[in-house]
This record gives sequence, structure tokens and C-alpha cells, in this order.
Amino acid sequence: MYYVGIDLGGTSIKAGLVDEGGRILQKATCPTKVERGAKPVVDDMARLSLKVIEMGGVSLDKVKAVGIGLPGILDPRTGHVPFCTNLFWHDVPVIEWMRETIDKPIFIENDATVAGLAESVAGVSAGVKNSVFLTLGTGVGGGIVLGGRIYSGSHGVGSELGHMITVAGGEQCTCGNRGCWERYSSATALIRMGTEAAKKNPKSLIMTSVKGDTAEITARTVIDAAKAGDPDALKVFDEYVYNICVGLVGIINFIDPEMIVLGGGVSLAGDFLLNAVRAKLPEMVFYKTMPFATVELATLGNDAGIIGAAMLGRD
Amino acid sequence: MYYVGIDLGGTSIKAGLVDEGGRILQKATCPTKVERGAKPVVDDMARLSLKVIEMGGVSLDKVKAVGIGLPGILDPRTGHVPFCTNLFWHDVPVIEWMRETIDKPIFIENDATVAGLAESVAGVSAGVKNSVFLTLGTGVGGGIVLGGRIYSGSHGVGSELGHMITVAGGEQCTCGNRGCWERYSSATALIRMGTEAAKKNPKSLIMTSVKGDTAEITARTVIDAAKAGDPDALKVFDEYVYNICVGLVGIINFIDPEMIVLGGGVSLAGDFLLNAVRAKLPEMVFYKTMPFATVELATLGNDAGIIGAAMLGRD
Repeated sequence: MYYVGIDLGGTSIKAGLVDEGGRILQKATCPTKVERGAKPVVDDMARLSLKVIEMGGVSLDKVKAVGIGLPGILDPRTGHVPFCTNLFWHDVPVIEWMRETIDKPIFIENDATVAGLAESVAGVSAGVKNSVFLTLGTGVGGGIVLGGRIYSGSHGVGSELGHMITVAGGEQCTCGNRGCWERYSSATALIRMGTEAAKKNPKSLIMTSVKGDTAEITARTVIDAAKAGDPDALKVFDEYVYNICVGLVGIINFIDPEMIVLGGGVSLAGDFLLNAVRAKLPEMVFYKTMPFATVELATLGNDAGIIGAAMLGRD
Repeated sequence: MYYVGIDLGGTSIKAGLVDEGGRILQKATCPTKVERGAKPVVDDMARLSLKVIEMGGVSLDKVKAVGIGLPGILDPRTGHVPFCTNLFWHDVPVIEWMRETIDKPIFIENDATVAGLAESVAGVSAGVKNSVFLTLGTGVGGGIVLGGRIYSGSHGVGSELGHMITVAGGEQCTCGNRGCWERYSSATALIRMGTEAAKKNPKSLIMTSVKGDTAEITARTVIDAAKAGDPDALKVFDEYVYNICVGLVGIINFIDPEMIVLGGGVSLAGDFLLNAVRAKLPEMVFYKTMPFATVELATLGNDAGIIGAAMLGRD
């Protein structure tokens, strides 16, 4: 059987025809154009689904299901997507609308959960029973796989790992609380910390590499400066790695996964980040002489969204 | 079939004969006397097991297993108990020693996990698929039930919920980190906060109720003073409830359980605590209009340890 996976983002809709093993056979994409509202976006998702099926030369009865990963959640009470902040969606009946065009089971999950599932089917955590996937991006998202299956909790409101509070009373978060983990471990946090350091010492490589324009500082600016050995950037990076480990320790001491997978933009820092996290973590976990989760980098990159969404319909 | 459950604490060993439904039929107890070392303690656990079986008039072949809840963990690599700080145990072959006297399958789990299992078999979370049990005592322990079964993680080092970091850089914890949740949400934390408030304002009811002897301040002192409306105690209590909610929010945003059960000494504050937590939590969870975990008080009290330990052998 075949599966369609859709990765719905704020910029583009990506669809793929995927086989049982999580391999993408065909891909198609179109711009999201959020401003047109939800219905045309959902119609485009259905249209792209049919398109990739046709491109693959597969008959419709060989397609088991369509899965959608989106930056929001599904309310199991209504079958609607109640929140999708980036898309300005509120209470959208995605499944109903999809099925106006394509008569297949439709599955919906949060994008980070979907990416975690992809890694656990066809990526670094393939075959791992219990894993936690993290997207270190603008925010921090999480995907939990327990017993080889997506774990989405009792009400579908879990795996929002970026909103564990790690610094009570700390930085204001968009969610209303102070001190959420993502305020300290996201790309946004790294940029904030790097910018502060650059302003304190304009001679730092962070500042000189953007020619004094702090608005140009990205996560990569800070990481590249740290890689080059700039003392200010290294200090920021060390603190950032500690911030990441603070949350990882919570994850380990809580559900003790076999593997934690780092994905999202910041994970492109590669071994430089991975080795630093791996070096810091052992001194911070509770049982210091017992084995605990290995930390790995995500391997599927941008394809994770399509693959994971497709795999929603497999199990 | 019948089960033996043993609750091993620093003060006493409690054993019980338990039926399929988690009902205690017979109980026996003896002092732990930690100072004699591990072997005599384990021998007493085996002896008490045989005693409650005999007291129940049950033949040995009707007993399926013996379960032990203890303040430490089992290393699945060795089958030994590697740490039991309160008992001064290190690398103790409990199962081997138990089986010298009693030829039954022996199961071992952390005491908080065992208490959580008890509640989910015969207590407030009976029939609840996904629940998290918390002991708010000297420290904060956790027990996780997922899909109706104990979840003990991939290496047996999970459910140490008191050691999620909620105030990075905060109070020094015995585990080596700073800012672990139990530094802010345990009975110990409440006593510390109450003592500080009493010293600041010796006229507070916290101070007068212990006749100025701050060493006499207990969690109950602070809660009773708050119940009586003392402004200083109420301020401490509000902050303490916030501290509890900081961790509960992490639990909810992470694994989204159906129910969170509050146990341990502090939970004896009853509805006064429960209502305050229930009032505070909705403004702190991530998805504010979606349903989330109900918070309840543990109902089994001191029997939870025996019942849960016995139930380790049932499934």
C-alpha cells in the first residue's frame, strides 16, 4: 500500500507519495498563501494529494490514507483543528474539507510529532522503542514515540516540550507563562543571547561578522563564531548548551527514553552541538552511573514532514 | 491468585497479602533497622512474606509473586538494587537473596511508582489509562502509568519527577543540579519558605504557633496558618501552589496524562491544597481552551505501598 504525506507550513504545502518503508516516491509543492484563508489551503492539500498519486502512477485504491502534519493540534472532540497560530486558523474542519475531494482516511498531527515519527520509521531512531524528538527552531517542538508508536497523550495537548518551565519567573513566553524552555533553547534564544553578547563587546566575532548590524545575527552567526573560537560566542554557546541540557535532563528524569533526537534549524550545527550536549549531560542526569538516553541528530531534514505525515496512516 | 506486597521504608518493613483486586487481606510489619545492613533486612522481607501468606491461610502455590517497593531503583542489567540512599544500600542483590527463602517471582520498583500503580488499581485513578502520581514529601517522587501499566522507561531511570529542573540556577539540590522541582514543591520546600517568612515577621501565625521555635515548623504548621487566614502563611502557600503548578504544567505539556494524583505528606492538606492547585492550573497550561488532566488527591494513604508492590506481580 501507499500513503500520502502532507507537510503544511506557513510558506509552502508539500505533499509526497510514500511507500510502506517511508520512502518518498513522488513530491509536489505549492505556496501556502496563508492570507487566502483556510478553505483554499485545504483544497490545495487535497489537490496535491491527488497529484502525487497520479504522478506515481498508483491507483487510488492502493492508497491507504492521507496524513497531514501541521503547526497546531487536532481536537479529538470535534475532529477540527482548533489552533494553528502561524496559519491564523481557528476551528477548521480539515478532515471534513479534505474528504470533499479525496475519499480516504485523513490523519492529522502536530508537525514536530510527525517529524519524530518519520525519524522513528526511516531515520536515526528507526527501531527505537521509546524516543523523544525535538525541533530546535523558532520555538521548540516535541514528538514522543513510546512503544514504537506516536504518543499524543490523553487529550492531544501533550508533547509541547518547549513549554516545560525551566526558569520559573524567567523570560516572558508567548504562551503566557514565564521561563518556558523554548525561551532558552530555541534558535530565537540563541539569537537573543548572541545579540546581547555582541552589544556588550562590539569587537566580538558575532558583531564583526554581521558588520555591526545586530538585526542580521542568526543562530548560525553565533555558532559559526563559536566554532571559530571567538570567546564571547563560546560563552554564549556554552550557556545555550546548558539551557538545552536543562530540558533534556527533565525529559530523561521523567520518561527515560532510549534516544533523544535533535532536529530543527539549530541541529544543523551538527557535531559541534551534539558533542557539546553529550559532554554536558552525564554530569546533570540523576543516576550518574546508570545508562540513559543517547542523543542523536535528526537525519531526514526537510523530508521528515512528508514521511512522518504519511506514516500516520500506516499503523 | 494472591500476591505479597512489601513496602520497604527507612523505619519499617510492611508486608501484606493482597488479592487480585488490590485488597489487603493480611498485614505484618517489623522495624527496618537500617544499621544492620542489607542482608538481614532482605531476610526479614522474605520472612514477613511467608508470615502473611500463613496468616491468610493460603497455600504457597496460590501465591503468584512477591513485589517490593523501595526508595531506590533496580538496575535491569544486574537485577541488583544499585542505589537506595535512605537505606545506605549499594549494589544489593535483593532478588537473589529473597529467592533463597521464597521461591516465587520477585518484582522490584521505586516506591513512588508502586504507590502510583496502587492508586491506578484500587485508588483514585482506578481505570484511568494514563496517570502521573506524585509524592509531595521530603522530596518529590513520581510514578507513571501509561496504557494502564507502569511506565518505567528504557533504562529504569525515569519517573524522577522531582528532578525536572524548574528554576535553572536556583536552589542547590542533593542530586548536584540547581533548581530541581522538589526544591520548590516538596514538604521540605514548604518548611523552608514558611521558616523564612516566620523569621521576616515573627508576629506571623507560623511563628507564634511554634512559640518562636522555627525548628518546630512543619509543612502542616504553614498550611494550618494559611487555612486560618494568616497573611504571611497565605503568601507562602500561594507561592508554593505556583511552584507545584510549574511542574504540573511541564507534566501536562509533556505527556498530557488523563489524571495527576497528589500523594505524600503535603497532600494531607486535602481540598485546601487541591482547590488552590485546580484554580491556578488552567491559566498556566499551554492550550487554554482544551481539556487537560484532572488533579486529584491520593486515596490509599499508607496502604498504597503494599497494594502497589503486590500488583507488580499481577500484570
